[in-house]
Formats: sequence, structure tokens, C-alpha cells
Amino acid sequence: MITNDDMDLVFHALAHQTRRRILDLVRDHPGQGVGELAKAFDVSRIAIMNHLKVLEEAGLLISQKDGRTRRLYLNAMPIQAIHERWIDAFSEVWADRLSFIKQAAEHVAKSNTKMKDGDHD
Amino acid sequence: MITNDDMDLVFHALAHQTRRRILDLVRDHPGQGVGELAKAFDVSRIAIMNHLKVLEEAGLLISQKDGRTRRLYLNAMPIQAIHERWIDAFSEVWADRLSFIKQAAEHVAKSNTKMKDGDHD
Repeated sequence: MITNDDMDLVFHALAHQTRRRILDLVRDHPGQGVGELAKAFDVSRIAIMNHLKVLEEAGLLISQKDGRTRRLYLNAMPIQAIHERWIDAFSEVWADRLSFIKQAAEHVAKSNTKMKDGDHD
Repeated sequence: MITNDDMDLVFHALAHQTRRRILDLVRDHPGQGVGELAKAFDVSRIAIMNHLKVLEEAGLLISQKDGRTRRLYLNAMPIQAIHERWIDAFSEVWADRLSFIKQAAEHVAKSNTKMKDGDHD
């Protein structure tokens, strides 16, 4: 269960181009070290460390110590939660509506058949 | 194709609790009018109109004139794009990795079988 405050952190974290790029790289290279990751950017290592902190606090990134290297992994859970909230629930609403329309159409079709049967009497 | 500027708009729009709640309501009641929607909130109608503007500019909301009513619909495309960028691509990376591990395991298994066959010679 993701609270509203957590969601604020997630969207704030994702609202920055560099942080989205970091998630792209970590997605493609699970377990990448911080040093190696920082090489892909034109900004200071300090700036990257700050972005990593924002991403970790939002729960989008997991880091693990491996000797002197800090290894980074994407945590897809918050993004999955966004999807579940608006896409899955949205699909359910439309599935319900379509099911209602289908039932209504079947009801009309049945009534028409009955009327035709009536004609034969 | 969603540009980086578009993505900034999407995440900025989603980084506000009231705007997320608006998307929830529009998801559950496709075609809801602005007046009816505004009733669900304790803030001014002007404030709601401003939030709707932010959501529309981000492409998360579609509005349609219906006489004097402006009807609102969720546009799930940007949220789908977020999912595709990090979840679908993430799954592909891991599927590739698992496929590599499976191949490696099969290779080892085959080598072991050959060694055993060799034992029988």
C-alpha cells in the first residue's frame, strides 16, 4: 500500500530528466556500481549522489554494498502501483460497462426473438 | 513518442494529491462534468479548473464540450508509456538474463552427460 506522501516522493523523483535517465541505465544494467553510473553523466558525482538519494527515498532504487562498490537496482514496485491505480482499475471500469452493454444487447435480442415467435402464433 | 518535456509535465501533474484524486474520479466516472467533479472537493471551483488545466496539458485528461457541460475522460496513454519504459523494458532485460542462465545451465548439463557417457567407454 503506497500512501499519498510516498506517491508525492515517487512523482517528484520522476519529474527530473536526469533521474529518469538513471533509472533507464539501472534497468539495463542491474547491479551497476555508482562510479560506473556517474561516468554516463556530464554532471558532478555529488549531483548524481543527490539524485540517487531522491530515487532511493522514493523507493524507486535499491542499493546494496558489495565491498567498496555500492550496487544499484531498479525497484519497479512504485511504477507497478501507478499502473494498477489508473490502468488496471480503468480497464475494470470499462470491462464492467462493456459487460452491461453486452447484457443489454442480449436482452434486446431475446425480446426481438420472442416478438418474432409471437408473430408465428 | 513522449518527449522529455512531456514527461516533465506528466510527473509534475501527478505530483499533487488533488490532481491524482481527480484522475481517480474521472477513471470511475468517464464523462463526468466539471461541476459535478468539483463538488467532490473542498477547494474552490477555480482551484479545480487550474488542476484540470495542468492535467489536460500533461495529456492525462481529455475534455469534451457537451452543450453547456464540459465532460472529462482519463487518457491512460502517458501512464501506459511510464509502464512500458520501466516495467516492460525491465522484464525484457530479466527475460534475456534468465534465458542466458537457462542456456548456460543446459550447456553445463549437456557437458555433464557427455562426461558420464565418457565414463562408460
